[in-house]
Amino acid sequence: MSKFWNDKVKEIEPYVPGEQPKDKKYIKLNTNENPYPPADNVIEAMKNAVNDDLKLYPDPTCSELIEEIAKYYSLNKDEVFIGNGSDEILAFSFMTFFSKEKQILFPDISYTFYKVYAELFNLDYKLVKLDDNYNIPLEELKFSNGGIIIPNPNAPTGKYIDIEQLRVLIETNKDSVVIIDEAYIDFGGESMVKFIKEYDNLLVIQTLSKSRSLAGLRVGFALGHRDLIEGLNRIKNSINSYTIDRVALAGAKVAIKEQEYFKEITKKIINTRERTVKDLEALGFLILESKANFVFVQHNKVSGKYLYETLKDNGILVRYFNKDRIDNFLRITIGTDFEMNALIEKLKLILN
Amino acid sequence: MSKFWNDKVKEIEPYVPGEQPKDKKYIKLNTNENPYPPADNVIEAMKNAVNDDLKLYPDPTCSELIEEIAKYYSLNKDEVFIGNGSDEILAFSFMTFFSKEKQILFPDISYTFYKVYAELFNLDYKLVKLDDNYNIPLEELKFSNGGIIIPNPNAPTGKYIDIEQLRVLIETNKDSVVIIDEAYIDFGGESMVKFIKEYDNLLVIQTLSKSRSLAGLRVGFALGHRDLIEGLNRIKNSINSYTIDRVALAGAKVAIKEQEYFKEITKKIINTRERTVKDLEALGFLILESKANFVFVQHNKVSGKYLYETLKDNGILVRYFNKDRIDNFLRITIGTDFEMNALIEKLKLILN
Repeated sequence: MSKFWNDKVKEIEPYVPGEQPKDKKYIKLNTNENPYPPADNVIEAMKNAVNDDLKLYPDPTCSELIEEIAKYYSLNKDEVFIGNGSDEILAFSFMTFFSKEKQILFPDISYTFYKVYAELFNLDYKLVKLDDNYNIPLEELKFSNGGIIIPNPNAPTGKYIDIEQLRVLIETNKDSVVIIDEAYIDFGGESMVKFIKEYDNLLVIQTLSKSRSLAGLRVGFALGHRDLIEGLNRIKNSINSYTIDRVALAGAKVAIKEQEYFKEITKKIINTRERTVKDLEALGFLILESKANFVFVQHNKVSGKYLYETLKDNGILVRYFNKDRIDNFLRITIGTDFEMNALIEKLKLILN
Repeated sequence: MSKFWNDKVKEIEPYVPGEQPKDKKYIKLNTNENPYPPADNVIEAMKNAVNDDLKLYPDPTCSELIEEIAKYYSLNKDEVFIGNGSDEILAFSFMTFFSKEKQILFPDISYTFYKVYAELFNLDYKLVKLDDNYNIPLEELKFSNGGIIIPNPNAPTGKYIDIEQLRVLIETNKDSVVIIDEAYIDFGGESMVKFIKEYDNLLVIQTLSKSRSLAGLRVGFALGHRDLIEGLNRIKNSINSYTIDRVALAGAKVAIKEQEYFKEITKKIINTRERTVKDLEALGFLILESKANFVFVQHNKVSGKYLYETLKDNGILVRYFNKDRIDNFLRITIGTDFEMNALIEKLKLILN
């Protein structure tokens, strides 16, 4: 604590990302990274972008990358916004679309950063309680509000909401922005992006960190009506004109183009997930139905905390949240088949 | 304008970066980029960092880069903060150290982004008027305030303040943070970093975009008492845990190490600046004394606006600000000798 901090800095509880211990080599199933590398052409494009032009500023409008994403999703260029990871875009969205006067809504068990943003920007917010099956009760979102954030699939539960249900929500909520955070959409869900031309209050946020194997690159994007995108640009240009570096721009552009590779690795991860679910069930785990690249599981006899700690001691990192209602769960990222076999073998030993 | 924007987004006037026209190849002397490429070892380190590990998140603590900067400036690791360009660090600083209740102070003719941040974060601010010689009147900053921002050298004037004078200001201003924005310090000025162990209210901000030839990479850093750095980290971790990508971390680390190359190119730029000043004076320009990688000049007969437009028509971009008191000036980045010769030759033709 310092006398030079303002009140907000004193009171805020920052987000805590998943641990990255360096004491030994772990099988890392704790931060939902993709186990497969970026496409070869992405690596090549980035290597080519490492050149003397780094002395020059990058394109602040991210024009070529935006064009590629717009083409991929059949949108116009002014319907796409690029950010330094989807977290930055979420922060900018809170700054652009929400006001102190009107309460915003998001699930109580969800991405922890939403609450941090709401606190940071002094917003009134309501945590909508997941039902007993860990579903988001959409009917409880259907009253006057200052904005809604729904992750689909939700994290850390992995649960997916059918897009027709979300469409009804957006339809009945015309006076505020509905943000659908689709960080994990490519692992079996369907994107809301097809409704963007229809609803001017829908903002879809995605990232290259998960399905495009580029967590190390820091690129996310938002898709929505051009007025929403213009608003995000007004905030971005009031904070930092150049958020994406030259090498990241080059890599991200090619990553969007590489559709075959993208389909191949997401399919592999989905297959591994389904296989892992069966293996975990055979070991006595209860598993929420997941459409993400992770599963949220609890064991019928052994505590989540014990399993987390014991797995860590045995060289396998998974994510454990010491929080009400989910303190018996583990969130396990889907890695390669090899990694998941190692996990299952280790769990067999621990549970025996 | 959209009904979904909050009031702040509606009213804010975002920063406008220097133009980047793509219609033809220009000699670019308008955004203070370094005319020399990054060091060879920087390029090599970045190429090596373009690998399959990009699937993994970068180190959110930027530990190795911080260690290198701390070593370079003989500071502790907890006295260094890394940001996505110095603009992001300035934005975070405004969010960390300033409050609505207390007026902050910065020069009226200065980096335009300060005013944008003050407006964005609803801060009360006073623009301290430069004197008739375009100096910052330090005595007018010596009264109770909520924070002070001084760029040294100032931009766009290029004028430098002796660090002993700034030291007196910090000494007499113990109750608020004084930010010295040293984006251009390496072109002949002396850094305030030597006083960091002495004053707990001094924050020095630097960037790799200018003297380290890495505008395309987006890395800046702040140096100060560990409580100030901790405050910045609290805000950063409430917005975006991973702001710097793997490739940027790798390149920035080596850029700090490459001291010989850094000294060589900054010396070259200083020499070119001194030569250019003489050439411009011979053509009838009045030039503010510059310790930056640019000069701020006006001609004794021909208007700045006309010169800016005519140079642009002739393939040379310089920066023109259509603002009170400086609307007759041009800010000209110091390029290579070849580029400056081209500028001088073109000016001779225009002024004849």
